[in-house]
Amino acid sequence: VSEDQPPGESGEDRLIATYFRALATDPGAFGLTDDAAILTPPPGSDVVLKTDPIICGVHFFPEDPAEAVARKALRVNLSDLAAKGAKPAGFLLALALPADTGKIWLAAFAEALGADAARYGCPLLGGDTDRTPGPLTVSIAAFGTLPHGTMVRRNGAKPGDRVVVTGTIGDASLGLRLRQAGSGGLGAGLASAEHAYLLARYLIPEPRCGIAEALRAHASAAMDISDGLAGDLGKLCRASHASAEIDVGLVPLSDAGQSLVSRDNALIETVLTGGDDYEILCTVAPDRLERFRALASAAGISTTEIGRVVAGWAPPRFLDRSGRPLVFEHPSFSHF
Amino acid sequence: VSEDQPPGESGEDRLIATYFRALATDPGAFGLTDDAAILTPPPGSDVVLKTDPIICGVHFFPEDPAEAVARKALRVNLSDLAAKGAKPAGFLLALALPADTGKIWLAAFAEALGADAARYGCPLLGGDTDRTPGPLTVSIAAFGTLPHGTMVRRNGAKPGDRVVVTGTIGDASLGLRLRQAGSGGLGAGLASAEHAYLLARYLIPEPRCGIAEALRAHASAAMDISDGLAGDLGKLCRASHASAEIDVGLVPLSDAGQSLVSRDNALIETVLTGGDDYEILCTVAPDRLERFRALASAAGISTTEIGRVVAGWAPPRFLDRSGRPLVFEHPSFSHF
Repeated sequence: VSEDQPPGESGEDRLIATYFRALATDPGAFGLTDDAAILTPPPGSDVVLKTDPIICGVHFFPEDPAEAVARKALRVNLSDLAAKGAKPAGFLLALALPADTGKIWLAAFAEALGADAARYGCPLLGGDTDRTPGPLTVSIAAFGTLPHGTMVRRNGAKPGDRVVVTGTIGDASLGLRLRQAGSGGLGAGLASAEHAYLLARYLIPEPRCGIAEALRAHASAAMDISDGLAGDLGKLCRASHASAEIDVGLVPLSDAGQSLVSRDNALIETVLTGGDDYEILCTVAPDRLERFRALASAAGISTTEIGRVVAGWAPPRFLDRSGRPLVFEHPSFSHF
Repeated sequence: VSEDQPPGESGEDRLIATYFRALATDPGAFGLTDDAAILTPPPGSDVVLKTDPIICGVHFFPEDPAEAVARKALRVNLSDLAAKGAKPAGFLLALALPADTGKIWLAAFAEALGADAARYGCPLLGGDTDRTPGPLTVSIAAFGTLPHGTMVRRNGAKPGDRVVVTGTIGDASLGLRLRQAGSGGLGAGLASAEHAYLLARYLIPEPRCGIAEALRAHASAAMDISDGLAGDLGKLCRASHASAEIDVGLVPLSDAGQSLVSRDNALIETVLTGGDDYEILCTVAPDRLERFRALASAAGISTTEIGRVVAGWAPPRFLDRSGRPLVFEHPSFSHF
């Protein structure tokens, strides 16, 4: 407790007022001056709930800029809301700050978080700040709404459905590999713009919020890709009591990703299993595919059909040009 | 990733299935097999949102039993929901686990969390588990519901309202002092049952969930006491543009608390400013006081009038027997 603490206002109150009050644009946040927040969902809505914290040294690097940490912290949660078909409604922020967290860091963090909150229509509703002896941790719980009973599940894939992904796959995991390799090695000879593109894809994900409505209207199952396409498709198949056959040649790569993979084919495993994509993986019945893709396209989101669902639970197969299934050394990321 | 990881199921999936699936009793949790959960509030409801994480070494001791950690993690959030007049509806759990967290710890943690979830009607809806290089951290975001527009705010206290608290004040902070002092010193001569009582009050708070309805019906302002009665009353007064005069002699102490304070009068500052009470502080208009207290009593919760609200923002005054205001060295707990 600082000596000059005015009565009725703690150091934490001041920190919140200084950095975060400007983000609390929703009336349910009460300007961050109360003990809790409220969310008033539209009549007939379900509230979709998600929490996915990020920890320094685990989910991001200590040297990552505050702006990137803020954006990643919110966006990994928005990605899940999008995959479930929900419209963002707001979020709670629990910050655990090491003692050496400075004002410049906090100001940059809050500004970027506020910019993303505005961009995605997901205002800060409330939260908590603590000192921690451990690494900086940003725990966001994000909330979305959708018409009752319409959340897009993992478990609805049907044999014959097409497997579809948004954007390009593997950029973030290749970016992480580049970053770990430093200069030289993996990235040698890669154009600097391509190098920068892959690094940025790891640093700041792009949640596909615009696809929520298309998923609700047409997808039989969906999830976001955070632990790698192969592992996450495995989870979707398992939940759906089905399997899938993927044509690896159809998996969409960015130009930069293609540059790397064409130089070292073994990197296709990184692309398919590395994770941090935050693209959407979904399944769509064939007769809905065109309408689904048109809606996604109207929202500015590219989609690619990469395979199909087949009957009976089994690990999905990733088939190469000759129709042989790839065998992965490390099929999916897991903390445990 | 372990070598024997079955496809479509990660180590994290197995950990969740083993320890936490049994807690996911609400249909909106989807058995923890999807990427997000849903909450379907009753028509015309607001959803009250709160997150208050606890960190090992900050909010609890490394040697605290897993059961106590689980209960504290949930209850500090339930306490806020109660203070706001909300009925618990469910929670998200984000666990950051050091590598040495064992199965026995996890099993005991999950069992106690499940018991409290059942006890308070607040089921686990979803969550996330991560490895952390830092201290064990339990981040719960808890949700409650109440009729639209009825959340009890901090800012409604009016001059003339009575200041009321539930239960007894200072037990937890005295328990913490006893624990920090070890054997001898502060606790010397205290009966062992009294010693144990105060330690337990620090270890496991008792959220006053039963008072939510009475608060909604009759309180002009309310909050839970987590950072000390003096500091939290200061916040309530500041938010209400009012002040308060408290008769320190009326502040309810437990027998054990009274035992300690009567031996060392200076401990009254610990009682009034120490925090971790998780009792309810509220203000009630005089003509509602009897009905409020009757409702609380019917819910098994004792309430005590300790003073009154006075006009104009100023730090609340805590008056001793002779009507002189106490001056505190450290008015309130704050991390910053």
